[in-house]
Amino acid sequence: MTIDRAQGVASAQGFRAAGVAAGIKANGKPDLTLVVNDGPATQAAGVFTRNKVKAAPVLWSQQVLTTGKLKAVVLNSGGANACTGPEGFQDSHATAEKVADVLGVGAIDVAVCSTGLIGERLPMDAVRSGIDLAAKELASGADAGLAAATAVMTTDTVPKQTAFTHADGWVIGGFAKGAGMCAPNMATMLSVITSDAQIDPAAVEPALRSAVEFTFNRLDVDGGTSTNDTVLLLVSGASGVAVSEAEFTEALSAVCADLVAQLQADAEGVTKHVTITVNGAANDSEALAAARIVAQDNLCKTAFFASDPNWGRIAMAVGNAPTDFDQQKLDITINGVTVCRAGGRGEDRSAADLTGRDIDVVIDLHAGEGSGTILTTDLSHAYVEENSAYSS
Amino acid sequence: MTIDRAQGVASAQGFRAAGVAAGIKANGKPDLTLVVNDGPATQAAGVFTRNKVKAAPVLWSQQVLTTGKLKAVVLNSGGANACTGPEGFQDSHATAEKVADVLGVGAIDVAVCSTGLIGERLPMDAVRSGIDLAAKELASGADAGLAAATAVMTTDTVPKQTAFTHADGWVIGGFAKGAGMCAPNMATMLSVITSDAQIDPAAVEPALRSAVEFTFNRLDVDGGTSTNDTVLLLVSGASGVAVSEAEFTEALSAVCADLVAQLQADAEGVTKHVTITVNGAANDSEALAAARIVAQDNLCKTAFFASDPNWGRIAMAVGNAPTDFDQQKLDITINGVTVCRAGGRGEDRSAADLTGRDIDVVIDLHAGEGSGTILTTDLSHAYVEENSAYSS
Repeated sequence: MTIDRAQGVASAQGFRAAGVAAGIKANGKPDLTLVVNDGPATQAAGVFTRNKVKAAPVLWSQQVLTTGKLKAVVLNSGGANACTGPEGFQDSHATAEKVADVLGVGAIDVAVCSTGLIGERLPMDAVRSGIDLAAKELASGADAGLAAATAVMTTDTVPKQTAFTHADGWVIGGFAKGAGMCAPNMATMLSVITSDAQIDPAAVEPALRSAVEFTFNRLDVDGGTSTNDTVLLLVSGASGVAVSEAEFTEALSAVCADLVAQLQADAEGVTKHVTITVNGAANDSEALAAARIVAQDNLCKTAFFASDPNWGRIAMAVGNAPTDFDQQKLDITINGVTVCRAGGRGEDRSAADLTGRDIDVVIDLHAGEGSGTILTTDLSHAYVEENSAYSS
Repeated sequence: MTIDRAQGVASAQGFRAAGVAAGIKANGKPDLTLVVNDGPATQAAGVFTRNKVKAAPVLWSQQVLTTGKLKAVVLNSGGANACTGPEGFQDSHATAEKVADVLGVGAIDVAVCSTGLIGERLPMDAVRSGIDLAAKELASGADAGLAAATAVMTTDTVPKQTAFTHADGWVIGGFAKGAGMCAPNMATMLSVITSDAQIDPAAVEPALRSAVEFTFNRLDVDGGTSTNDTVLLLVSGASGVAVSEAEFTEALSAVCADLVAQLQADAEGVTKHVTITVNGAANDSEALAAARIVAQDNLCKTAFFASDPNWGRIAMAVGNAPTDFDQQKLDITINGVTVCRAGGRGEDRSAADLTGRDIDVVIDLHAGEGSGTILTTDLSHAYVEENSAYSS
């Protein structure tokens, strides 16, 4: 099993991709991505934002995915097409129709994703001409995957892609974008993942749900679940290799985890990669809820930015979690040093060195067997700068 | 009815107060406050943090308040005495014992509050000598109230006090401290309020609970509910004026609201005073929950800092609230300009002027009759600076 970030969404057999500059972004950077599944299978599944305010492309893609099949995905940056009313939905529909025309498929075979500023209509002339351009550039392989990963970027500073290759010859590859609004239940986060494995059609959606639950949904940059979050999985079966649901899910989870690590590393204004693990909760879901509370706490996040092993703030934050524990049993370990033991001062906080990039926080509630981990970042001046300067 | 910020906790008849430099803070600033109720009544009530990690003084004060009576409150800044184990609880007990000795009352008549760094024991020699010093300086009136309000400050930049005087001659006055960790269900927030009204003993706690619910609990600076949050109400009845529960609650709420306005104005790094109102929710509690979600969203808070009427982020945030609504009916009005109407773009965002200090956001969900308001602040560079530099 190999994970290779030089490969991406167009590495699995049966897939082509392109990323072009369509003129949707005012600055002329790449802004339109097309991913095509040439089959033979056209199995697909999606996981979407749970935000009650859903962008038009999310509503469109949820609708077309009720068939369990997709032949193409078109994505644009430069505009979220969210809070754009019925006209915005018509724009997503028209985008799918245009792709369908160019590829000779049905609009119902085409998912649409958008990212960028909320509340503005898309420049549909640019979208249409961009689709024509992208269709001409469709190709397989590393370069096409990278172009596809690049054209979905907003405040991302680097494209994010990876691919897994099994010794038996089947592949899962994909890209992701996202920098702010990274949160529980999906970030401002678009990801398309492709595979040429032959798998049971009934396994596609469960495999994706499981992989997302333990990867994308464990990243929390700033608690903001966006209007557009989407992860799509397309399966061509073109490798001819039959793969079990368990094996496929494991490989898919590895691909998702690698994309999530890249999202965390490129989060807005990040200077620290923080891992919050809660052990000893009554159950896993309470552990996860407690880890999220700490990950979202601005006082903890500013302390991480300061490389300050300020365990009092962590104790304060975990005390606000919807999980029961006895404060006299609380242990907090930061980068291997148990600075809080049995609810009070443990080893001296100066022993915990947080000056490096990685901060590992382990909280033990001693209230049960549940555990859970959330990945997060610090809250830096650069986060404030980027998010106060960018009207997203 | 007069509200006067020149008066405070020692303005009501029957009360004396003092604030001194006891040497708990390394910088020699005032750090110990004593408030004494000379009666004739000694009714009291308290509202405490709901954080599961409770500081020793909170555990102590909750215990003594089961009697419904208090004769004194001692407060220190310079150390939270939280996460200090059984020894920390003994320190709170010893602090109350010392006050009891000096005043000739019982330790069970003395509440204790602390604020400052979590996880460190208090310097008890300094606390004890500070109590001796404060007892000698106890006095009634404006100067004593101000000294009391000053000695509880941590990152506060100004003391916060106010008093209400009724035409009939009864008074409610108090102080509050708090700058960061201001959140739902109490901030790092200590407040002591005194009154000389004669009221039904059974009305003291309900009056305080009601006033806190609609004032302190509607302020949310950064979502962090601290280990030490406490609001205490002491009633002497010394004015001899009998006051109904309704009238007392109304006046107490006015005093609390004025203290909250001062807390909001002095929040860490604040450059904007933001009011988030949600109307048209299914009920008031869902409206309040939705307003809190927006108030806690870092993308909204950085946009407020930037004076950016970025309603897309508000729509995103409210879409994450645990309240049902139809996104096609969502209206968002910022400083009087309805920038989002029926889920889409309304008046041009450039018409909303956010350059002033006050930002007023009104969200209408059109899903019912419920409404609620939360006061909050922006997320500024100064917030990051202050909270990354200060080990609290």
